[in-house]
Amino acid sequence: MRYDIAIIGSGPAGLSAAINAKVRNKNIIVFGSSNLSEKITKAPSVDNYLGLYNLTGEELKNVFKHHIEEMDIKITEERINNVYAMGDYFAIMANEKMYEASAVIIATGIEYTKPIKGEEEFVGKGVGYCATCDASLYRGKKVAIVSYNSEGEEEANFLVEIASKVYYIPMYKSEYNINENIEIIKDVPLEVRGDISIDSLVLKKSELDVDGIFFIKNSISPKYLVPGLELEYGHIKVDRNMQTNIKGCFAAGDCIGKPYQYIKAAGEGQVAALNAVSYLDNKKHS
Amino acid sequence: MRYDIAIIGSGPAGLSAAINAKVRNKNIIVFGSSNLSEKITKAPSVDNYLGLYNLTGEELKNVFKHHIEEMDIKITEERINNVYAMGDYFAIMANEKMYEASAVIIATGIEYTKPIKGEEEFVGKGVGYCATCDASLYRGKKVAIVSYNSEGEEEANFLVEIASKVYYIPMYKSEYNINENIEIIKDVPLEVRGDISIDSLVLKKSELDVDGIFFIKNSISPKYLVPGLELEYGHIKVDRNMQTNIKGCFAAGDCIGKPYQYIKAAGEGQVAALNAVSYLDNKKHS
Repeated sequence: MRYDIAIIGSGPAGLSAAINAKVRNKNIIVFGSSNLSEKITKAPSVDNYLGLYNLTGEELKNVFKHHIEEMDIKITEERINNVYAMGDYFAIMANEKMYEASAVIIATGIEYTKPIKGEEEFVGKGVGYCATCDASLYRGKKVAIVSYNSEGEEEANFLVEIASKVYYIPMYKSEYNINENIEIIKDVPLEVRGDISIDSLVLKKSELDVDGIFFIKNSISPKYLVPGLELEYGHIKVDRNMQTNIKGCFAAGDCIGKPYQYIKAAGEGQVAALNAVSYLDNKKHS
Repeated sequence: MRYDIAIIGSGPAGLSAAINAKVRNKNIIVFGSSNLSEKITKAPSVDNYLGLYNLTGEELKNVFKHHIEEMDIKITEERINNVYAMGDYFAIMANEKMYEASAVIIATGIEYTKPIKGEEEFVGKGVGYCATCDASLYRGKKVAIVSYNSEGEEEANFLVEIASKVYYIPMYKSEYNINENIEIIKDVPLEVRGDISIDSLVLKKSELDVDGIFFIKNSISPKYLVPGLELEYGHIKVDRNMQTNIKGCFAAGDCIGKPYQYIKAAGEGQVAALNAVSYLDNKKHS
């Protein structure tokens, strides 16, 4: 089955895109978290979202949740690792599944986690962002997973069945629900070292000899999410219609630039959705 | 007294600009209507404004009103006829007053009333948009006022004290609260005729010999509101920061382009306000 519009992200930009596409009777799928947006939930108080005065982040999230529930919009809890432009449609790769959509809206927010030294240099040469996708490359090898959220636990549990050794470096505080064969390292990663491919992960207090390192972040850099996407000063480059350099691929919210604000994101999500609808309608009639 | 930011318009763009500028402790003035936006009030139902599901336009307006009242933002009910860039500040001309502000945000919406034939050609040569401003030019002369709202009544009552003859052509239905010396013409204006200056106003059923014609519209075209403002396809041209071609002059909402939607306008109002704040802060430190 091919969706009309796939929306990647469940913050204000993604949700606003979703309700606007739904109003226009498009068949949509929204990828994100049932918690919608961690950033919103943590906001102590929001008073600059016109019409919703003096809500806590948690209350704002609930108001958004109510809105999408009333319009029968569901969030598909999948981590999207890659979006490929196939010409006439987009192939959207989740950990174990592939989805198809005629248009796509990127609303993945902004990743505040800066890459560590050497990380970007070794992407594809030992550094990756999806352990389950690349697991087969590390059969019998040593792998480190640096995870900024609990999603990394599942990845580690999957990888330990294949790799000879898995180190888990959690960058968050929680109970860790992981297999006992995985070694938990509580330390701060500083640098990826290597030559043609990687040799080790340098941490503050130690150095791990590994063949692969996965960084599990709250959002993947758009550069790796959508190959070929044009960026500008670290944000996705869009025109006033929220159209990116890839036909049929739109973007909205923090990932396209500052200010990082909710109603700015919601407004852009609306513009992206309405232009995605026009794009689909024009395609049908041409 | 000079305001930090003057906001012209009280629709979603203007109000969102106002709350965001106020959050940043700027001294603002908002020009508009206590009814906020006629367009919103008339909307039967709005369901694509994220967080506010299934409200009538009237309910949405009341939610906005509550928000600005809670933040102690008042609407100054003045019709702004001109905004002049004075270099370091803006001079904002209301009918009988002048206001000053260091930055200005244009959020005047879109004027759906198309100019009639000859109207634009004769601006400044007999055609005007503010009778009280230009009244002295028509001492002892014949003037027609084509008004799209009840504001024209006050203009007509003012003008009849000076002109030899005033025709009032109301384009709306209501009781007309005007001086008995004014002649009401219920007809449809079609064309402004003239040579170097105007000779007559042609209507569907008659022709009026006049020296001046004023069109009182719900919003003035940005072209006449802010001399020197750059337009593009009939909308104010802005960059991604909502900055116009005039330094310190920002714009947001329907007046900068489609889609004509509330949350798109509110998002842009926020962006305009935050960039106006940056503009003022940079100015102070330079």
